[in-house]
Amino acid sequence: MKEFDEYISMVNNALANLKLPSQPAGLYDPIRYSLEAGGKRLRPVLTLAACQAMGKEPITAIHQAIAIEMFHNFTLLHDDVMDNADVRRGRPTVHKKWNQETAILSGDAMLTTSTMLLAIKAGDHLSEALELFNGTAMNIYEGQQYDMDFEKRMDVTVEEYMEMIRLKTSVLLGCACGMGALMADAPFETQVQFFNYGVNLGLAFQLQDDYLDTYGNPETFGKAIGGDILNDKKTWLLIMALREDKTGTLSEIIGSDIEPSEKIDRVRKIYDSLQLPDRIHELIRAYIDTAIACLDHIDMMPEARTFFIDLALKSATRKS
Amino acid sequence: MKEFDEYISMVNNALANLKLPSQPAGLYDPIRYSLEAGGKRLRPVLTLAACQAMGKEPITAIHQAIAIEMFHNFTLLHDDVMDNADVRRGRPTVHKKWNQETAILSGDAMLTTSTMLLAIKAGDHLSEALELFNGTAMNIYEGQQYDMDFEKRMDVTVEEYMEMIRLKTSVLLGCACGMGALMADAPFETQVQFFNYGVNLGLAFQLQDDYLDTYGNPETFGKAIGGDILNDKKTWLLIMALREDKTGTLSEIIGSDIEPSEKIDRVRKIYDSLQLPDRIHELIRAYIDTAIACLDHIDMMPEARTFFIDLALKSATRKS
Repeated sequence: MKEFDEYISMVNNALANLKLPSQPAGLYDPIRYSLEAGGKRLRPVLTLAACQAMGKEPITAIHQAIAIEMFHNFTLLHDDVMDNADVRRGRPTVHKKWNQETAILSGDAMLTTSTMLLAIKAGDHLSEALELFNGTAMNIYEGQQYDMDFEKRMDVTVEEYMEMIRLKTSVLLGCACGMGALMADAPFETQVQFFNYGVNLGLAFQLQDDYLDTYGNPETFGKAIGGDILNDKKTWLLIMALREDKTGTLSEIIGSDIEPSEKIDRVRKIYDSLQLPDRIHELIRAYIDTAIACLDHIDMMPEARTFFIDLALKSATRKS
Repeated sequence: MKEFDEYISMVNNALANLKLPSQPAGLYDPIRYSLEAGGKRLRPVLTLAACQAMGKEPITAIHQAIAIEMFHNFTLLHDDVMDNADVRRGRPTVHKKWNQETAILSGDAMLTTSTMLLAIKAGDHLSEALELFNGTAMNIYEGQQYDMDFEKRMDVTVEEYMEMIRLKTSVLLGCACGMGALMADAPFETQVQFFNYGVNLGLAFQLQDDYLDTYGNPETFGKAIGGDILNDKKTWLLIMALREDKTGTLSEIIGSDIEPSEKIDRVRKIYDSLQLPDRIHELIRAYIDTAIACLDHIDMMPEARTFFIDLALKSATRKS
């Protein structure tokens, strides 16, 4: 197995060698801009690592890995238009730097390009790879739709929330892992275990994101703390607090126009009083344990197992 | 060969039997709404007819046919957002009836769904079908980008315009024809001839669209006449007139805020003085002749040849 950073280098090299056309610049420049922004590259690394864990050179799955990264960046681009977000990874979003038409059209081109990449050297696995990829994409759109639907609702249950983040965020990590196993000719059962590992890792990852948005250190987290609270975003923390806060104070704070820093402070105090920081960490740990348990059903070298266990443990304790 | 309307029925049946999920309704209802709106179904009919012309049952290519129709409707949906259009086929556009977020996300789901449909029963042709389909999609995005770029330019040449409509409109008709031939196991050379037939048909089709927008009968055309003139749209007519009108009158009219019906009237008079209506029909006829000449290189039954010749001739003289 390679180090995490070595896989990242492989991914960045492959993306740099993509050779997108130069014209029309209005279509292709925003794609280059999105890909150059970096990011964790977690998904393509999972694909390459799963492929290597199953005994094949990681390069075997490089096109499928960057297909998934391209797809991920497409979803960010279109989500930013839908959420009217100004900043992504410290830079203006595409629709702010260019305009909305450009953001929509470049995103469409990224989605088609991701399918093209997926097919390169897929060989006998093309049909299965497409099925996994397209099925995952549909789940992600469904998750995004539920996320938008939840904005208008105050009665979202924690079960509905977990299903939403499973669709919107987690299945793509599952797809990334399963894709690596598929490209390495692993049996279907093994692909499913890798998929489940990724989904549980993804759930833990999103819950940690919810936690960091409210409790993170602004210096390591990389963005302002409390954005979810200010937007009344239906996160695990808010949904649990709405369910358990019998005083009605929280419902009063939500939607009121209290001064921002005071709103963050007051909501956080309610979360604290319900021990939500400890409880979300218990839940994150449970998903990490479930992810790691999936690895027990996969026949692989100890160093590969260690790679995936370490990755899961790091996700649960990450600060950024 | 079947009648045009019989192929349409096959397409509409297949679309009605798609069984999209019901939830989340915000994602899937707009897709159903888009597909129910109808339209000419020209592209999927071309796929089924080309498949049958090459000796296979048209049903062989039904999934590929509706994949292309789904893709076409996706492009209309996103184009309407980009153009901020209010009406499509006599009904409110998706972003007007719902909202912009819904239109973007449902469009994305239609694009992924079209790829899923393309893969169904594609068998040994999956890889080639994907390549044709995705390459065509990229051309269409490029064409849409050029179309948007042209809005800001007054020096668009007629060559640039023809290349833009080849990309934005014509290659999808080429793809539809080539796909039918591919699914019928026709040799590559035949697929290319079908593709070229479709591209030339598409060029004629778009030029006839430009003509009808300025000279059509509002009752048969189905929408208000003169929209292109009022929007200073760089059509073949306007580009040629800008090139040939040495008086400078046309440049003065463009961008000025003359009363709409007077603007239409004055621009049309300039077109008339340059004999543009006759000349665009000569050009349309030339593309139709080129399309029909492609059929000479394809070995098929006389009744199949007649079907494609009739279709081409009808496109050149259509009123709606």
